Amino acid sequence: MRVSIRKYSDKPLSDSLLNDLLEKSFRASNTGNMQTYSVIVTRSEEKKKALAPFHFNQPMICGAPVVLTFCADFYRFSQWCKARNAEPCYNNFLSFISATIDTTIVAQTFAMLAEEAGLGICYLGTTNYMASEISEVLQLPELVVPITTITVGYPAETPEPTDRLPASGLIHQETYKEVDIDALYAPKEALPEMKQFVKDNNKETLAQVFTDIRYNKTNNEAFSKKLWEALKQQGFVK
Amino acid sequence: MRVSIRKYSDKPLSDSLLNDLLEKSFRASNTGNMQTYSVIVTRSEEKKKALAPFHFNQPMICGAPVVLTFCADFYRFSQWCKARNAEPCYNNFLSFISATIDTTIVAQTFAMLAEEAGLGICYLGTTNYMASEISEVLQLPELVVPITTITVGYPAETPEPTDRLPASGLIHQETYKEVDIDALYAPKEALPEMKQFVKDNNKETLAQVFTDIRYNKTNNEAFSKKLWEALKQQGFVK
Repeated sequence: MRVSIRKYSDKPLSDSLLNDLLEKSFRASNTGNMQTYSVIVTRSEEKKKALAPFHFNQPMICGAPVVLTFCADFYRFSQWCKARNAEPCYNNFLSFISATIDTTIVAQTFAMLAEEAGLGICYLGTTNYMASEISEVLQLPELVVPITTITVGYPAETPEPTDRLPASGLIHQETYKEVDIDALYAPKEALPEMKQFVKDNNKETLAQVFTDIRYNKTNNEAFSKKLWEALKQQGFVK
Repeated sequence: MRVSIRKYSDKPLSDSLLNDLLEKSFRASNTGNMQTYSVIVTRSEEKKKALAPFHFNQPMICGAPVVLTFCADFYRFSQWCKARNAEPCYNNFLSFISATIDTTIVAQTFAMLAEEAGLGICYLGTTNYMASEISEVLQLPELVVPITTITVGYPAETPEPTDRLPASGLIHQETYKEVDIDALYAPKEALPEMKQFVKDNNKETLAQVFTDIRYNKTNNEAFSKKLWEALKQQGFVK
């Protein structure tokens, strides 16, 4: 069963393997075959150190041989249009969402192919929080926005898989149905590590750890505004 | 080499295989292990017919044994919070983007596992155009938005793989670099089917087929507004 890998061995990840995996992931489905994505490869200590604070100094950034920033990219396609007597029209929200989905599809294809090749990966969701700062570090032009980041390398740990909700609660037949929340979340809430997590955070319930601490209203609203500003800065919205 | 499948055989796709593949795809990485996604399974002729016009009557909807609508879902998580004396705070843009990425990761994991199991899949990008109408057909509650749709079944065709840009143009070392647009797009533009495509559409260049017809400014701007209204309707943004 797959797990995220946050500690990497010293074994180097060759450019040829990396490029081969990336090229294969570009075979994934995409909208109109426009391939509206780019991948920025970070190997240098200098750039890792520059990125680290914008990923809240998660140790995977400096600990992994390679950091990949998967970006929604309508810049290249627009440059092609301009060079071919065509007027690009991709500075809008729909194009951003479409490129975001296609970028994520490539990222996950890469993740699965990398795991199949014996590598370990970890996603960094912090990319959406700090899109503007990351864009500056990576010198992204207009219509390019970082969507997600994957650290990759050979694993130096074998963590236990984390829990998942019973799949039946996430699959709906024909129309969306209300689920039995108590039954669905009871197994997760009963896990010793979750009980400890509630205790460590001085909360009454596990849900409060999320709403009051990990993904709280103040941060969510501030980072929503910040992400929107990043989309403006990169020219996707007005 | 993988290809999208748009024609499906009569061989039925069992619930047990489908549920097994979905359950496995829920193992994919996700933000804070909140699992902010749901999958709506459409098998009934009635619901396929109801969905079809909102996917511009693409024949895969009624031709596939199963249509899967992958939805960003902060409703279930919010219901859990409310039931646990916690105040959910996920009606914002950041949460929408985070759930969109996690939903897409699950969709692509499913796609790859399905292909490995001998099934064929096709993505429908129309989901983002008609999110509001699709939400009504599938009876999605607040904080649930359809992100992408996959049709799935056993293949009844073996199409040729479509072209891709040279991978080197999509991979940037350390920082984003300008690429040689002419060199990058020349192989695509030289394909006989692309030349025919330009001719059939009475255009001068392939790029014009995209900007003037397939993904044009009028549609992109209208559907951007419509998608934003759908996010409002589902309560993700104000």
